[in-house]
Amino acid sequence: MISIARTLRRLPKNIARRRCLGTSTNSEPRKRKVVFSGIQPTGIPHLGNYLGAFQNWLKLQRDSHPDDQLIFSIVGWHALTLPQDPKALLQSRNDMLAVLLAIGLDPKRCIIFHQDENPDHPELAWILSCLTPFGKLRRMTTWKSRLAVSRNANNEAEIDESLLNTGLFTYPVLQAADILAYKATNVPVGEDQQQHLELTRDIAEGFNKAVSRELFPLPEYGATASKRILSLRDPTAKMSKSAADSNSRILLTDDYQTIRRKVRSAVTDSTPGVTFDPENRPGTSNLISILAGCTGEDATAVARRYSDKGHGYLKNDVVEAVEEMLKEPRSELLRLKSDQAYLKSISEQGSREARQISSRTMEEVRRLVGLSI
Amino acid sequence: MISIARTLRRLPKNIARRRCLGTSTNSEPRKRKVVFSGIQPTGIPHLGNYLGAFQNWLKLQRDSHPDDQLIFSIVGWHALTLPQDPKALLQSRNDMLAVLLAIGLDPKRCIIFHQDENPDHPELAWILSCLTPFGKLRRMTTWKSRLAVSRNANNEAEIDESLLNTGLFTYPVLQAADILAYKATNVPVGEDQQQHLELTRDIAEGFNKAVSRELFPLPEYGATASKRILSLRDPTAKMSKSAADSNSRILLTDDYQTIRRKVRSAVTDSTPGVTFDPENRPGTSNLISILAGCTGEDATAVARRYSDKGHGYLKNDVVEAVEEMLKEPRSELLRLKSDQAYLKSISEQGSREARQISSRTMEEVRRLVGLSI
Repeated sequence: MISIARTLRRLPKNIARRRCLGTSTNSEPRKRKVVFSGIQPTGIPHLGNYLGAFQNWLKLQRDSHPDDQLIFSIVGWHALTLPQDPKALLQSRNDMLAVLLAIGLDPKRCIIFHQDENPDHPELAWILSCLTPFGKLRRMTTWKSRLAVSRNANNEAEIDESLLNTGLFTYPVLQAADILAYKATNVPVGEDQQQHLELTRDIAEGFNKAVSRELFPLPEYGATASKRILSLRDPTAKMSKSAADSNSRILLTDDYQTIRRKVRSAVTDSTPGVTFDPENRPGTSNLISILAGCTGEDATAVARRYSDKGHGYLKNDVVEAVEEMLKEPRSELLRLKSDQAYLKSISEQGSREARQISSRTMEEVRRLVGLSI
Repeated sequence: MISIARTLRRLPKNIARRRCLGTSTNSEPRKRKVVFSGIQPTGIPHLGNYLGAFQNWLKLQRDSHPDDQLIFSIVGWHALTLPQDPKALLQSRNDMLAVLLAIGLDPKRCIIFHQDENPDHPELAWILSCLTPFGKLRRMTTWKSRLAVSRNANNEAEIDESLLNTGLFTYPVLQAADILAYKATNVPVGEDQQQHLELTRDIAEGFNKAVSRELFPLPEYGATASKRILSLRDPTAKMSKSAADSNSRILLTDDYQTIRRKVRSAVTDSTPGVTFDPENRPGTSNLISILAGCTGEDATAVARRYSDKGHGYLKNDVVEAVEEMLKEPRSELLRLKSDQAYLKSISEQGSREARQISSRTMEEVRRLVGLSI
């Protein structure tokens, strides 16, 4: 009879180690995931952010394998690609950390950190930029469109490219560095960011080829549940923090009365009854999406319950569901914001943990390109 | 009678302090200079580098005011904008530090450091890139021409811009960061870099304006003595490390026999006698420039001494003058390269000193853009 120790010695080292740690029960070792996602520190998030990114992050935290690494970054350097008021940015930057904790991300389970506290990101971005063809960045659809939006231009042709800032042009490379510094394998992003993730894969592949080593895994697109939440005032547009009418969005800090007022004044239509028909009834369908997002149900199933009921009935239930979902994060956010010492300690912990990982990557990168022994 | 202490109290604070320190004898306080210059780690430097940049740096070290700060950087990150063999780059990077010491730069007087060991540079470059109009970088003449050279294209039109790497496009911003991280006031560069220094001034001005503070001085162009040393084999081109014919350049490591062979085979012309006429007699004039550079004389004065002598006579004296100038750096370089422990300690000292200055700048920058308190 062969002892267990001897069996283990015969296995390849990494499998043996995993088995000893009891992290795999299959014969094939489980591939550990490293999930990376970032969010810009630009004001208090709204319901669209919550039902889009945040719910997905919380789901990852709840359902992912204990071996998987979850990394969430507040990407201050990206915020600088558009003009910012420094005081407001600093406030948003600090608020966003509190928000991520308030919604329930657990700093014991995830790494939550400020990108702008880890200089490995811009360093890696520089090195990767030397491998990124200029033409690939020019093809990024966000290049002109982001500024068209920020300057209220009607279309891209109105924008004089030469006036755009260079950071707006190169930020997809910084994004690639954000991801690759942690050798992330999975990146949950919205559809609008899919093109950037493709670029990150190209850059990773280009680097691996240039140095003849599989240093970077090619990160996979982990789509966020595509809950596209629309403006409450103009349901042809997405819910947005920058829309002029503040009644068009529900903020994470809105109290019950405010939520009620905003939902009640939400634009719907005059068709009797409730159906889920995003194309012809965007306002009504948006309320159903919100309700479904809050309760975790399917939108059409929700719609069926309200088929013979009026908009008022639906709106009342939306108010209650949103309040139910947001009340805890809202009070937790207030509590956290009064405990700056705790926030500071979490911020420091996050930076330390992030740099621990990225510094190992950078040691390899520097050696492979010929900048260190 | 008014006491000295009382007089000092009446002076503006900074003047009083300077006087106490005995650093100024005029009534106007002397403006302290911060000189920054960089060199790429790309192989053993040649005579053109020595008579261009290095002699100028040594002059700065000898003649500058003791209060002035001299900072010389080996800019490894810039080398990555063109394809590099990692092993060769690592070797060049280490050699260049030894070269700078061998020619006589004193690490007690100057800060000599590896750019790629100070992450403040790419971080500042990122922040500055968010203030740099895309159009300004596209107008840089180096943008296409550098690659045209590296790919042996005949002109810029042959180059497909979209294939160029992004680092080659954005490196003038990294250069600006190299300079501004130390709040440099003077940058000795060749004429070909004057456009980049203009950009640095624009970026500095743009940043100061954006944050409503004179954080960055606008660095002044400190032209290196324009000793344009030409190829010994083709005196229509500059002496270059990348020319195919290695006899076209004299390296800092060349021994007496090699120098002699290369100078003797230098292309001149068949006009009898020696005159300094760079346009019509580039080869002959180049030898005069080299001799004048070695002895510190004026080229026309040198030419006068050889007016009735042959090329052979001139060449003999060039050989002796070059040998006289290079023999000490050459043997010192050999000695230093055998003392890696010393080189390592100097490299570490340089990094430490550089980061001490740039980290103060970065604290201010981060605060001013809203990324830290």
